[in-house]
Amino acid sequence: MRYELYYWPDIPGRGEFIRLALEDAGADYVDIAYSQDAEHASAAVAAGLDTRHRARPPFAPPYLRAGDLEISHVANILAFLGPRLALAPADEAGRLWCHALALTLTDFTAEIHDIHHPLGPGLYYEDQREVAVRAAATFIDQRLPRFLGYFESVLDARGKRRPWLAGDACSTADLYLFQVVAGLRYALPRAMHAAERAVPNVSALAARVAARPRLAAYLASDRRMAFNTDGVFRHYPELDLQPEPPYGS
Amino acid sequence: MRYELYYWPDIPGRGEFIRLALEDAGADYVDIAYSQDAEHASAAVAAGLDTRHRARPPFAPPYLRAGDLEISHVANILAFLGPRLALAPADEAGRLWCHALALTLTDFTAEIHDIHHPLGPGLYYEDQREVAVRAAATFIDQRLPRFLGYFESVLDARGKRRPWLAGDACSTADLYLFQVVAGLRYALPRAMHAAERAVPNVSALAARVAARPRLAAYLASDRRMAFNTDGVFRHYPELDLQPEPPYGS
Repeated sequence: MRYELYYWPDIPGRGEFIRLALEDAGADYVDIAYSQDAEHASAAVAAGLDTRHRARPPFAPPYLRAGDLEISHVANILAFLGPRLALAPADEAGRLWCHALALTLTDFTAEIHDIHHPLGPGLYYEDQREVAVRAAATFIDQRLPRFLGYFESVLDARGKRRPWLAGDACSTADLYLFQVVAGLRYALPRAMHAAERAVPNVSALAARVAARPRLAAYLASDRRMAFNTDGVFRHYPELDLQPEPPYGS
Repeated sequence: MRYELYYWPDIPGRGEFIRLALEDAGADYVDIAYSQDAEHASAAVAAGLDTRHRARPPFAPPYLRAGDLEISHVANILAFLGPRLALAPADEAGRLWCHALALTLTDFTAEIHDIHHPLGPGLYYEDQREVAVRAAATFIDQRLPRFLGYFESVLDARGKRRPWLAGDACSTADLYLFQVVAGLRYALPRAMHAAERAVPNVSALAARVAARPRLAAYLASDRRMAFNTDGVFRHYPELDLQPEPPYGS
């Protein structure tokens, strides 16, 4: 089966969550973002979203084509690919749990996005920067430890013998968490440096994922896009944890 | 199969998306919100979220127990229940599409929530009211027509002979959209009154769902909780579309 991944070129964004699963599994796939120049790739992605000419248009990318099937939404795509790529638990309870983890990561990702767009995705960052500073501070104080602490406790309960979020082996949920951690380290380096002290299992999982042979080769390749300030994870220094004032000041 | 639905008492919230599927299907279920007094119901829901004592704790309610299985996240629960309650397309392509629709509705619901909590869910509304007024105006101007227009176009493409979002019959996606429309009519009555003029198929779908016999009986019963300002959908007049000033003023 040759898969076709549709996502905007030039940003890793939510397409990268799918790319990591395909790369880790060594799957045969066409990446529309790379298959043609950026302008044509964008046009191909947009054509698939055209509600006037398509019976089941996705609301937004990423979407995946697999033969006659088309699947949209990151968690839906990962639930579809997981069993096909040997990246999902074999039993129903495990698959439902793996999907729940992916949906929690989807919610986490949306909240990470919203710190730079608290007034809505249709306004420029520059037009909501002051509100974003307040939203980011609240996120760093409350939501970042809440989400990371949740995954830490899940990993802690599983113990050293089963160091993955679901089942006995690496699943799409582990790859998803790895990419969220990578995105947070880029977007909020100071806040993440502080927060990771409390979640050693999460940091260890991210390292374990990054060391998987096919994924390590992908991450070192020029196919791995750098994060930038057009995607979901954006680094704006004013949104990060601010340095402590020097002693005595 | 007797299902057990776990969700906070006293608010319809995201639990209602699950309740509607169970009620429409006439399923045998225990609703924890009603099975005991509110205090004990809240304690039962919270116990299921305890990360210290549970191997696969949900991140948040609602969650559903079905025999030995436990499923969390609205869309995950609906994807599980759909085929079991005859509320899903029979083919794989249809089920993947139905799940994608549910996930778009999940995103829509999160954005509806965020207009009253743009700085984060951990702060009181009163402490972010001014920002919420700006977020709501942006939502009403941009996101409300974007989401409603998407579902309108999907229904429009399906035509009069197949007046449901997925497959040949009512599915969990239709019930989900009905409840989002109901929530929006409560939360933003002026904005929704104006917006619905452009989406007659969505309004007709909501009426079609509400007229289904078992659902109509449920909606008229005292089991149907009223919306209030503690849930996802909240009515704060200052967030709604503001009336036009009188002519000449």
